[in-house]
Amino acid sequence: MTHLPYGGIASFVRAPLVDPDGDWRATFAVLGIPFDIALGFRPGARFAPRALREASLRYVPPFTGLDGRARLDASSQTDPLFVDAGDVVLPSLEPELARERITQAARAVRARCRVPVFLGGDHSVSYPLLLAFHDVPDLHVIQLDAHLDYTDVRNDTRYSNSSPFRRATEALPNLKHITTFGLRGLRFDPEAVAAARARGHTLVPMEQVETDLDRLLSALPPGQNVYLSVDVDALDPAVLPGTSSPEPDGFSYRLALQLIASVVRRHRLVGLDVVELAPTLDPSGRSELIAARLILETLAEVQDAWS
Amino acid sequence: MTHLPYGGIASFVRAPLVDPDGDWRATFAVLGIPFDIALGFRPGARFAPRALREASLRYVPPFTGLDGRARLDASSQTDPLFVDAGDVVLPSLEPELARERITQAARAVRARCRVPVFLGGDHSVSYPLLLAFHDVPDLHVIQLDAHLDYTDVRNDTRYSNSSPFRRATEALPNLKHITTFGLRGLRFDPEAVAAARARGHTLVPMEQVETDLDRLLSALPPGQNVYLSVDVDALDPAVLPGTSSPEPDGFSYRLALQLIASVVRRHRLVGLDVVELAPTLDPSGRSELIAARLILETLAEVQDAWS
Amino acid sequence: MTHLPYGGIASFVRAPLVDPDGDWRATFAVLGIPFDIALGFRPGARFAPRALREASLRYVPPFTGLDGRARLDASSQTDPLFVDAGDVVLPSLEPELARERITQAARAVRARCRVPVFLGGDHSVSYPLLLAFHDVPDLHVIQLDAHLDYTDVRNDTRYSNSSPFRRATEALPNLKHITTFGLRGLRFDPEAVAAARARGHTLVPMEQVETDLDRLLSALPPGQNVYLSVDVDALDPAVLPGTSSPEPDGFSYRLALQLIASVVRRHRLVGLDVVELAPTLDPSGRSELIAARLILETLAEVQDAWS
Amino acid sequence: MTHLPYGGIASFVRAPLVDPDGDWRATFAVLGIPFDIALGFRPGARFAPRALREASLRYVPPFTGLDGRARLDASSQTDPLFVDAGDVVLPSLEPELARERITQAARAVRARCRVPVFLGGDHSVSYPLLLAFHDVPDLHVIQLDAHLDYTDVRNDTRYSNSSPFRRATEALPNLKHITTFGLRGLRFDPEAVAAARARGHTLVPMEQVETDLDRLLSALPPGQNVYLSVDVDALDPAVLPGTSSPEPDGFSYRLALQLIASVVRRHRLVGLDVVELAPTLDPSGRSELIAARLILETLAEVQDAWS
Amino acid sequence: MTHLPYGGIASFVRAPLVDPDGDWRATFAVLGIPFDIALGFRPGARFAPRALREASLRYVPPFTGLDGRARLDASSQTDPLFVDAGDVVLPSLEPELARERITQAARAVRARCRVPVFLGGDHSVSYPLLLAFHDVPDLHVIQLDAHLDYTDVRNDTRYSNSSPFRRATEALPNLKHITTFGLRGLRFDPEAVAAARARGHTLVPMEQVETDLDRLLSALPPGQNVYLSVDVDALDPAVLPGTSSPEPDGFSYRLALQLIASVVRRHRLVGLDVVELAPTLDPSGRSELIAARLILETLAEVQDAWS
Amino acid sequence: MTHLPYGGIASFVRAPLVDPDGDWRATFAVLGIPFDIALGFRPGARFAPRALREASLRYVPPFTGLDGRARLDASSQTDPLFVDAGDVVLPSLEPELARERITQAARAVRARCRVPVFLGGDHSVSYPLLLAFHDVPDLHVIQLDAHLDYTDVRNDTRYSNSSPFRRATEALPNLKHITTFGLRGLRFDPEAVAAARARGHTLVPMEQVETDLDRLLSALPPGQNVYLSVDVDALDPAVLPGTSSPEPDGFSYRLALQLIASVVRRHRLVGLDVVELAPTLDPSGRSELIAARLILETLAEVQDAWS
Repeated sequence: MTHLPYGGIASFVRAPLVDPDGDWRATFAVLGIPFDIALGFRPGARFAPRALREASLRYVPPFTGLDGRARLDASSQTDPLFVDAGDVVLPSLEPELARERITQAARAVRARCRVPVFLGGDHSVSYPLLLAFHDVPDLHVIQLDAHLDYTDVRNDTRYSNSSPFRRATEALPNLKHITTFGLRGLRFDPEAVAAARARGHTLVPMEQVETDLDRLLSALPPGQNVYLSVDVDALDPAVLPGTSSPEPDGFSYRLALQLIASVVRRHRLVGLDVVELAPTLDPSGRSELIAARLILETLAEVQDAWS
Repeated sequence: MTHLPYGGIASFVRAPLVDPDGDWRATFAVLGIPFDIALGFRPGARFAPRALREASLRYVPPFTGLDGRARLDASSQTDPLFVDAGDVVLPSLEPELARERITQAARAVRARCRVPVFLGGDHSVSYPLLLAFHDVPDLHVIQLDAHLDYTDVRNDTRYSNSSPFRRATEALPNLKHITTFGLRGLRFDPEAVAAARARGHTLVPMEQVETDLDRLLSALPPGQNVYLSVDVDALDPAVLPGTSSPEPDGFSYRLALQLIASVVRRHRLVGLDVVELAPTLDPSGRSELIAARLILETLAEVQDAWS
Repeated sequence: MTHLPYGGIASFVRAPLVDPDGDWRATFAVLGIPFDIALGFRPGARFAPRALREASLRYVPPFTGLDGRARLDASSQTDPLFVDAGDVVLPSLEPELARERITQAARAVRARCRVPVFLGGDHSVSYPLLLAFHDVPDLHVIQLDAHLDYTDVRNDTRYSNSSPFRRATEALPNLKHITTFGLRGLRFDPEAVAAARARGHTLVPMEQVETDLDRLLSALPPGQNVYLSVDVDALDPAVLPGTSSPEPDGFSYRLALQLIASVVRRHRLVGLDVVELAPTLDPSGRSELIAARLILETLAEVQDAWS
Repeated sequence: MTHLPYGGIASFVRAPLVDPDGDWRATFAVLGIPFDIALGFRPGARFAPRALREASLRYVPPFTGLDGRARLDASSQTDPLFVDAGDVVLPSLEPELARERITQAARAVRARCRVPVFLGGDHSVSYPLLLAFHDVPDLHVIQLDAHLDYTDVRNDTRYSNSSPFRRATEALPNLKHITTFGLRGLRFDPEAVAAARARGHTLVPMEQVETDLDRLLSALPPGQNVYLSVDVDALDPAVLPGTSSPEPDGFSYRLALQLIASVVRRHRLVGLDVVELAPTLDPSGRSELIAARLILETLAEVQDAWS
Repeated sequence: MTHLPYGGIASFVRAPLVDPDGDWRATFAVLGIPFDIALGFRPGARFAPRALREASLRYVPPFTGLDGRARLDASSQTDPLFVDAGDVVLPSLEPELARERITQAARAVRARCRVPVFLGGDHSVSYPLLLAFHDVPDLHVIQLDAHLDYTDVRNDTRYSNSSPFRRATEALPNLKHITTFGLRGLRFDPEAVAAARARGHTLVPMEQVETDLDRLLSALPPGQNVYLSVDVDALDPAVLPGTSSPEPDGFSYRLALQLIASVVRRHRLVGLDVVELAPTLDPSGRSELIAARLILETLAEVQDAWS
Repeated sequence: MTHLPYGGIASFVRAPLVDPDGDWRATFAVLGIPFDIALGFRPGARFAPRALREASLRYVPPFTGLDGRARLDASSQTDPLFVDAGDVVLPSLEPELARERITQAARAVRARCRVPVFLGGDHSVSYPLLLAFHDVPDLHVIQLDAHLDYTDVRNDTRYSNSSPFRRATEALPNLKHITTFGLRGLRFDPEAVAAARARGHTLVPMEQVETDLDRLLSALPPGQNVYLSVDVDALDPAVLPGTSSPEPDGFSYRLALQLIASVVRRHRLVGLDVVELAPTLDPSGRSELIAARLILETLAEVQDAWS
């Protein structure tokens, strides 16, 4: 007896609820970060963790394909495949305190699972999330994003959703490299582009993803520890309209998944965040459904890569 | 440290989650019934239990008034004041099986708490819910509703949201009386009106509620066991637009609460359902906020009446 | 076997479809005028005739009350109680031609029924509609409206939805009097107010409707031929938000119906229009439901007044 | 003089209204089935027949192309090209009775036209619709769908929108083959896949449609009687977001039409259904416009194939 | 030649645009504060200043009533009646800097006009706005609000939209008194209530406004300098649904205006803010129309009181 | 210090506001035409100029690319790069007067800038706009559109949004050629197609754009004066759903920009209009964002072509 998708308490894929600091172990642990005051345009990402949980109920694993192969199948393991660690308890307004709490909760969750899955929130949360990975050697961030998010200061702040990776590189000596796929914003901050290039980061415009993906992927150093940060505005807004700052001509779902699958097969995934989903901007509801499916197919690829 | 309303897993007023058949005791236990295929107009009540849970997070008790008095305060008691028993696990399509499951879960919940609180669903669920009260002596149903819901057969079915109380009176010898407040539909089924009158039920049109409430309330026999069924279309659609079949000139929030408070002070409340909320019909989101507040102020009145 | 409200072809209350110029007779005949280019703010009234037809399917007569009395009961008569004459076939853009077509269709419908019911469209359509009543002696227009709609010229045009009654008084010697109930716009055109007063029209602000209705109604000369024009913005926008130019503090549904009932009991209703409904402005869908119910309760009062 | 699309009573492409059991003949006859209680996620397909009729008014044939060729031109024939047989009169709630009525009406319509066109409703209606084709020899169902819909039991029911083709193969000895194009759901029911394969059905994932369509089409046995069932979720949700269960990476409009055109040129089309359109999920209104256009271009291809 | 409401650049009532620090004088000067990151529920008040400007274009003064009297008539004065000083240039995220900029701009505007009109933003902006009134002797704040907004700390911050008046009383020795009308939240912060009472503030629940308004108003000390802060959630959500935290049973438009008119006749208005309007929560668009009208009728009352 | 996109008065890219007839010079001057009563389907284009101005605030130039190159950089020039001339002051209803005012304002703007940019409005406005270019020798119109818009009379009018280019060719001897890219409507008016062909116009169906663009572009005579008219329904409705009459299988953003870039590099752009954007039909808000970006990237290409 299972619930229909709209029935029952909405934990991610109906996973057991745990406290971030509790006594548990799992393969994948989900943590929500309902924080969106660092974006400077259309709010709503604060509602994303709950929307993603609800949407995930249409995609409760295991996933059996037409070929009969089951993915994300928990039957053969003892630890749970998924737990849901709820949301970070955030303050109102106080950004610094919010970042501390995010780092702390991420660290707790990371210590108890193989791959933590973070549900943003706006993209600013990637900075405090990455702080929880300060001890990962040779950390490589792979980012799917229409925008670079490497700005030093924008509209008088250093902590907006335009700056998470700038702050992270400053704070984390172990963060060796950032690769950004899907760039297609209209205005790039020249200082940010120069700073990223000076540090050796790889900046891949969207057109190049389409024409040159294999070469780009094989040019990445193999075997690193990869933190994958997916800004849903990397996807084409026709595919996923529910985001603050849509940019045309983005990833199809298939291309995004293909890139992600290649990454998780070549590298060791240490963490995943999915950010900038704004459910209220898409009354069709498909944005959260597609983002939830992308998360789950990503994790299926991760598990496949392990076996 | 508490979550903002949009943070954290949405159980009703952040109450502990329990299994209906589990080992627990509570004052109030919430059970959702995400079932809406028995209505013949605009669907969406299936989404109400989850919407009410989310809305309830703006109203987590205790409630301290301007006078400093705290209501729904759990501090002085050992059992939890609230638990959330989740939703009934419903089949797809099969109405008879759905009714069985609803009755079974309601019975389980009822056995473990002082007052069960049922979140519909369309109004047809009141029938299987009432079956769980077959052993309550002198059961009196008090219904707030724009419509009578006492039709024998409508559009070829005996189990639609027009018939729950007809079915209940047939099935439950202990159901002695039904009082319906707020009637103002345009078309009444003559057979249903006649049958209700023949059985001695009290039918109160909306105008009469406004002008004659005290007399009506004092005319009710005191001290019975009352099951309160609140169809949110009793409220004026200006107040609560998110419902399948709105009818103008309904209850203000205040009048509804005043009536309910009088009822729970004079009688013993054995159960409460709130039905026909269709959140997707109200993009302002106030419908679920107001319905959740009504539930909680009702329970505060109940607790006050006990003390 | 009857359809659920969302089933079947949507004619008004499932009435037979007729051609305005066809061979038919009926008590009430419905004609839609999907014209809204004469309003100067938020469009959408072009969609009202179809929305009102769909909404009317929740209110198919007869209406049996709690007292068992049936209203709008066609069983005792030979002509149909209702027919639906469809919509006027309107040109694109050409306002003069549109007015001609409206007058022509209204005249054809009026000749074949006891009371024609016109579904606007913006309020400009009342002018060409009234032209079809040029031969009614002592014609009295009773208007429910937040605005006076008696402006000579607004934004360079004499035919906008601000001017229908000015044009009608110019064109129709038989139009003796206009009474407007519910005035509460913020800005009145001083010239229009003066012109209306000079012609002896009765201008009733909303506050006065609430406090002085009986006196106002009894001051109207009895027994005239009344054309009733209901701009839905007469209703409070909380009750009916789907209109181009909402103004706060309007009619409750009950007060509007009470006024209308008094009018149709004292006078001979020769025609009815309901205008300025903009369904797309109200995603809750209650605006068309309430407007359709108001039309039908009005007609029930009319029929009651005849018997 | 013709109506603008929002004017006039909405029959499909303004076709004459007929009773399914009446005395008429036509090339194409449209029948609506406003039934959606068999789906287990987001309701709204009950509103699709009416939405498709309204949308069809933008596409009233004949269709003259840039090359001057007219399609769906009725001028050369005596029978009407189109009639609209309205909607099946459905009960509330009672699924078995609903299926009987659907089969009965479909049979009546089918007997009077060359190709019946069925407007769902959720996909469960394809089962009772196919029962009306029990006497068609060598019936071949071609299905465009993201999902297989061949599940035996889901959420305790055998009659949901996941099972229509399973039920049909059980009931119809003449149903020889099913080909499903566009499969891309995340979770397939292993038992359903195995059963479909065991029966020799052709299961075509979406990727294969894109890369291998010609070979797939030519592998189909020529000349059969084909019933075409189009679940609109076959289309990419960017193209058509108004559907209960969207899946990314679906058909473009062009590819869907190309596939359909190939099918109707090679085979004899005996019936067509279009299902799972949920208009309220797409406030842009393009979902019904695109679905209506797809129906009409399909029929234009059918007529072209005949000549 | 004047624009229709949707035409032309949207300054408030088409007033001249000025720089806050520029060389200008005016009777009323409008300043927007598009800041909403201090609220802890549903965002969107950042869009209010622009929405209020657009809505104001339906209400461009002067306002001539049915009695022919013109209000807000600029013809007899030399300074402009209105100027629009645009919005405060706000940083992203940095609340302290935001508050500084708000105070600075408010001070500049205040120095150049008779009554500054501030368009929020969430209610937290009232604190930095009030700082610009530090030199007003015997400052009295009159607040229309469902909530007290006098909390010391909420969710770890002292600067949320729950605390503006607490912070203001701490910072402004000249702030002598606060009167809050319309209180009806479910949960009051006991510490805040006690602190407000200890300071002698007047706390008026909504019911008391309705029954006892005259006495309450006459109990206020006459002739003070009043800063009026209107949280739009003071209004009933049926009247104005577009707000983050709606509470049932609030002010009608008429009662709010009546209270405001009494206040501005008895006292000297030194400033006005209107806050917590969230336009995206009300697709009917009436929320901003009604709020804009309330602002303008308030200013008409102010001007009337002066003459 | 710059505003966030939702802050400040919304002029196009924050350009200075000018009067069309004022004393100014600029490279690009923006003029809005909020006129949509000439379309015969879903209204809303009247709201496009304001929506495009607001959306443009996310894309304030200069645009620095990943390569560090700045486009639309005003720093090296004395005249402003952009001014915003506001909207044409339009009458209500009177189409002929509206056209006169549009032509007059367009002429004034054109005389003061290098390239005027017109924000519609429905497509009918291209006719009066083109009248302002009567003195441009060898004028060539390049139109991106799903529809031909060359109909002589439709629904009794010669001035609807189906006819602008027919009227323009009649009125303007200097209009030598029209090329329409992206045709894919279902029904073409045979008379209009014949008339366009007879006059030598180039009609390019969408499929041909995709397969044969280079040949088509090089077949255009080089060096003419080109007026570019972009009907946003040229774009695929998945990309831009907010338009009255969407047609599937349209331009991707990239292809549209590529075509436009080729055009402006080969020809001399004398004017640009962007029409048929209906913001209220797209609650995601991406339609105006994408249209604004397309305008700005077009102008960047224009400026690049000059240098």
